[in-house]
Amino acid sequence: MDEKLTSKTEGKPIRCRAAVCRNPGEPLGFEEIIVAPPMPHEVRIRIICTSLCYSDITFWKMKDPPGIVPRILGHEAIGVVESVGDDVLEVTQGDTVVPTFLANCGECVDCRSKRTNLCSKFPFKVSPWMTRYENSRFSTLEGEVIYHFLSVSSFSEYTVVDIAQLTKIDSTIPPDRACLLSCGVSTGVGAAWRTANVEEGSTVAIFGLGSIGLAVAEGARLCGATRIIGVDVNPSKYEIGKKFGITEFVNAEECKNKSVSQVINEITGGGADYCFECVGMASLVEEAYASCRKGWGKTILLGVDKPGSKVSLASFDILHYGKTLRGSLFGGLKPKSDIPVLIKRYMDKELHLDDFVTHEMGFEDINKAFDLLIGGQCLRCVIWMDERVCHVTS
Amino acid sequence: MDEKLTSKTEGKPIRCRAAVCRNPGEPLGFEEIIVAPPMPHEVRIRIICTSLCYSDITFWKMKDPPGIVPRILGHEAIGVVESVGDDVLEVTQGDTVVPTFLANCGECVDCRSKRTNLCSKFPFKVSPWMTRYENSRFSTLEGEVIYHFLSVSSFSEYTVVDIAQLTKIDSTIPPDRACLLSCGVSTGVGAAWRTANVEEGSTVAIFGLGSIGLAVAEGARLCGATRIIGVDVNPSKYEIGKKFGITEFVNAEECKNKSVSQVINEITGGGADYCFECVGMASLVEEAYASCRKGWGKTILLGVDKPGSKVSLASFDILHYGKTLRGSLFGGLKPKSDIPVLIKRYMDKELHLDDFVTHEMGFEDINKAFDLLIGGQCLRCVIWMDERVCHVTS
Repeated sequence: MDEKLTSKTEGKPIRCRAAVCRNPGEPLGFEEIIVAPPMPHEVRIRIICTSLCYSDITFWKMKDPPGIVPRILGHEAIGVVESVGDDVLEVTQGDTVVPTFLANCGECVDCRSKRTNLCSKFPFKVSPWMTRYENSRFSTLEGEVIYHFLSVSSFSEYTVVDIAQLTKIDSTIPPDRACLLSCGVSTGVGAAWRTANVEEGSTVAIFGLGSIGLAVAEGARLCGATRIIGVDVNPSKYEIGKKFGITEFVNAEECKNKSVSQVINEITGGGADYCFECVGMASLVEEAYASCRKGWGKTILLGVDKPGSKVSLASFDILHYGKTLRGSLFGGLKPKSDIPVLIKRYMDKELHLDDFVTHEMGFEDINKAFDLLIGGQCLRCVIWMDERVCHVTS
Repeated sequence: MDEKLTSKTEGKPIRCRAAVCRNPGEPLGFEEIIVAPPMPHEVRIRIICTSLCYSDITFWKMKDPPGIVPRILGHEAIGVVESVGDDVLEVTQGDTVVPTFLANCGECVDCRSKRTNLCSKFPFKVSPWMTRYENSRFSTLEGEVIYHFLSVSSFSEYTVVDIAQLTKIDSTIPPDRACLLSCGVSTGVGAAWRTANVEEGSTVAIFGLGSIGLAVAEGARLCGATRIIGVDVNPSKYEIGKKFGITEFVNAEECKNKSVSQVINEITGGGADYCFECVGMASLVEEAYASCRKGWGKTILLGVDKPGSKVSLASFDILHYGKTLRGSLFGGLKPKSDIPVLIKRYMDKELHLDDFVTHEMGFEDINKAFDLLIGGQCLRCVIWMDERVCHVTS
């Protein structure tokens, strides 16, 4: 059926439904939009399902640049290839693909190096455009330009994504699980696995037990960490966290006269081997740094703080304590080679994905997903794109 | 002759000459002092020669704590064991030893780990006392307590040092070379070798070409770095630096409208693999961080900044650039096992030590060494302790 459809739509604009952000912080509105055919090195995909990640909320609220409207948000998804642009050899019509905000061109010195996952041909930026051409594939029926988000824009029945940002996967994995690997779960699991390279028997502390923090716990568990300490202000996160390997819990609001780092230093006898900041708060990075073990502790920053925020560390501490600070974008994973590894680990029943999905709903309910995530009432809401409303434009 | 002397002095206080700091920032004064016998786990040594390190200057000037007077400064030295306290089995009378400000007890979990050089039994601190007992072995003839510095205090003909802070070495190495491994050269070479683990073919940038920075260059050269960029405000450092492997020079005061990091990013095509801050200026750490390669660049902090100084990095940069920041105390070297390796490399004519010694003088000229180092006119001044003026007190 897909094949039949794609043969009809290939090379032509597609008219379909999208949830468009026209006013920061206000509910997305459903619109009929036009999705242009893919340019060379681009792929047009039909979204099967998308999930909501906190970065969508952050940019949805943002009134100043890089916030921009009208925009199609969404960047955690799975889809099927509808058609490919010129020079795309890696995927073909009908292939199942996972888009990622991080590019992986496979050719640049960074993609060819084992030392980094940061493609230097298409470095990460929060742009309103397609990756390669700095323009848009979306427009209203009247021809008004609609902007992209992280070059994914999955809150649309169809989208166009650069081939550098697509990973072809085995279609046997349930799409409502695979889509989590498009951003959040990969970021967390990867941070423990690839960025920190957590060793067996390690002690880990995780600041913030949202989906990313829980995915770090899951990654640390898979790496063989024996103590995984969760830190959050919401005590109900402890029970949830246990499913992902959390072994201990520190309620940041109940440390009495102590700082969280004092508590962690006490219960670990000198600090955790690895600390992960998953909230996006510079002051918490400093607390995480203070919580990691002198001599070899590593602090990994995963949370996205507001633009302009600074992490401030005492020179004395940096010099004398031998600790390491680094960031982790997409968990240090190279999308095209590492996402398939995670999918295999899920299929082998090693990686737990199921428990991350707390809600599933239809596309028409996408604003409910925003409410749930803002209210801290969900981990991942998976949004199914439902019946396609798709017409070839004349 | 030593043996004869030690048999006479063992177990008794020694009266000898020391250069004492009584007024911060004013010339050291020579005094006859009393050096008590070593307590258990301590060793009394006769200093053969000592060299002046910038930390001596920093603490000599310091009016507020941890500055304190009267104090015997000096921590880069070589000596001969005069006598040992109880429970010292590792060295014996007549052994040649190098003291270090960093302890290496050999027993704690950190000393037994390959991941750190920071002994946790005797963690580094700037104390006016002996390491283990929190009291002094120095006094005036009238009984006034004189304070220690970094538990070494080598500006005295005799001193007492904890066995955890002594490394026994082969006495065939010239003492005016070996003493450099007691602090500065080890710190720099170690930072490249042990802390950064510089790889063959790497590009390295070094901020500040004093002895420490030049020792980093020497370490990077030994590790096989191909481009070693020196950054300094003094252009004469380029010629000096070439002896230690510096291949390029950036004059920080002649970058026109660019920052040093912009220049380094340009000439390296995206940043150095490793950046070392050897000045002790938080703002320069930030510049070094901005100069290192996205994806895998590492910034190593070696310089000692004033108490309270902070390094401030943008959260965005930490998250998105995959760079690492860490500090290096004593270059990440474990004194007892790594100093002998460096000595062997010197004896094998691989490690260049000779060119670090720009001046040698007698103990009576120690204040000239201060002037030379403050004026930036020397790398290392080695001070020979000359004829011993030593009497057993009655």
